[in-house]
Amino acid sequence: MLKIYGNRQSGNCNKVEYTAILVGVSYDYQVLDFQKDLKTQWYLNINPVGKMPAIDDDGFILFESGAICKYICDKKSSSLYPKELKQRALVDQWIDFSINHVGVSISKVAFNRIFAPMFGMPVDENSLKEGLQWLERYLPIVDTQLGKSIFLAGNELSLADITLLSVLEYSDKAKVELSSYKSLTAWRNKLLLMDFYKKVHSA
Amino acid sequence: MLKIYGNRQSGNCNKVEYTAILVGVSYDYQVLDFQKDLKTQWYLNINPVGKMPAIDDDGFILFESGAICKYICDKKSSSLYPKELKQRALVDQWIDFSINHVGVSISKVAFNRIFAPMFGMPVDENSLKEGLQWLERYLPIVDTQLGKSIFLAGNELSLADITLLSVLEYSDKAKVELSSYKSLTAWRNKLLLMDFYKKVHSA
Repeated sequence: MLKIYGNRQSGNCNKVEYTAILVGVSYDYQVLDFQKDLKTQWYLNINPVGKMPAIDDDGFILFESGAICKYICDKKSSSLYPKELKQRALVDQWIDFSINHVGVSISKVAFNRIFAPMFGMPVDENSLKEGLQWLERYLPIVDTQLGKSIFLAGNELSLADITLLSVLEYSDKAKVELSSYKSLTAWRNKLLLMDFYKKVHSA
Repeated sequence: MLKIYGNRQSGNCNKVEYTAILVGVSYDYQVLDFQKDLKTQWYLNINPVGKMPAIDDDGFILFESGAICKYICDKKSSSLYPKELKQRALVDQWIDFSINHVGVSISKVAFNRIFAPMFGMPVDENSLKEGLQWLERYLPIVDTQLGKSIFLAGNELSLADITLLSVLEYSDKAKVELSSYKSLTAWRNKLLLMDFYKKVHSA
């Protein structure tokens, strides 16, 4: 059986679990402790980066949440990650956009507004300001895109939506104001009501 | 014919061109000017992010370099991006590792050591230090991996190698010391001698 190593405080781990639920794969979820587990030798043997998530699928070990989600989808030929060349390319495009632009920006904001205060680390005001400025550049792009189609890469739910949703996992706690982005907010509110989301957040 | 919009000063653009050459796709290369072209309406219609590269493949427009490379490979069923489930997952894993960890770290170093001085912008010492510290954590992982197999995701050249190579495009100019990573250096030196690399860098 698929084993997921993760923690439901992590957006990347939740992305993998959302995908497994949507695709209909059974899994064991092994909760990792952020402080205790990640630097232990047994976990570094699974993921040498010492980050979560990772999976062990009957002996096949994989890390990097994006690669894991694609693997889970392709193993089940799920429409969440379409096979058709151009449709897959557009899903890949919006996955990469969500991670490389929105995700990198939100990480800066979340680190300085949530995690630095939590762990008694210094707040980097430059980094915080940069993250917020970048979000003002990138969020309008997804908002415009979500005004054109029901989901991020067209009118079907895809891994691109699951990726963006998980990237936005910390946005409320990090006080990233999304309400002025009407299409993005409507899209997000729709996803937050879906069973896969509720299942993970009530686990 | 495939049209690539890019600039050969950009590692992400070069990644797309390396891929097109390796896969054997003919292309027109439209060189963009970093200052003049990216914020024009005609280019924002192609890539709303105002970044390069982007492609126009007989009317099919795509941005995000990673998505473009996968599209080019899959269009030609290239072994550079293998179809077999687990082999593809490992290629995806090392692509994501190269971008999310090595790439994000090198960007911090390159921005502060190359681009900030070039454009008269302030150097962020915190960001530079963080980038260097992260590289000390991530480069040993690729070095270890490249000690186990000829290429990053096994014994065949893959899109993971092309991705890491392009991520390292600025490493010399950014004075990122790679020589202590013996397997990584040997792997890189081998790739730098290959025709696809020489063709792009003599264009």
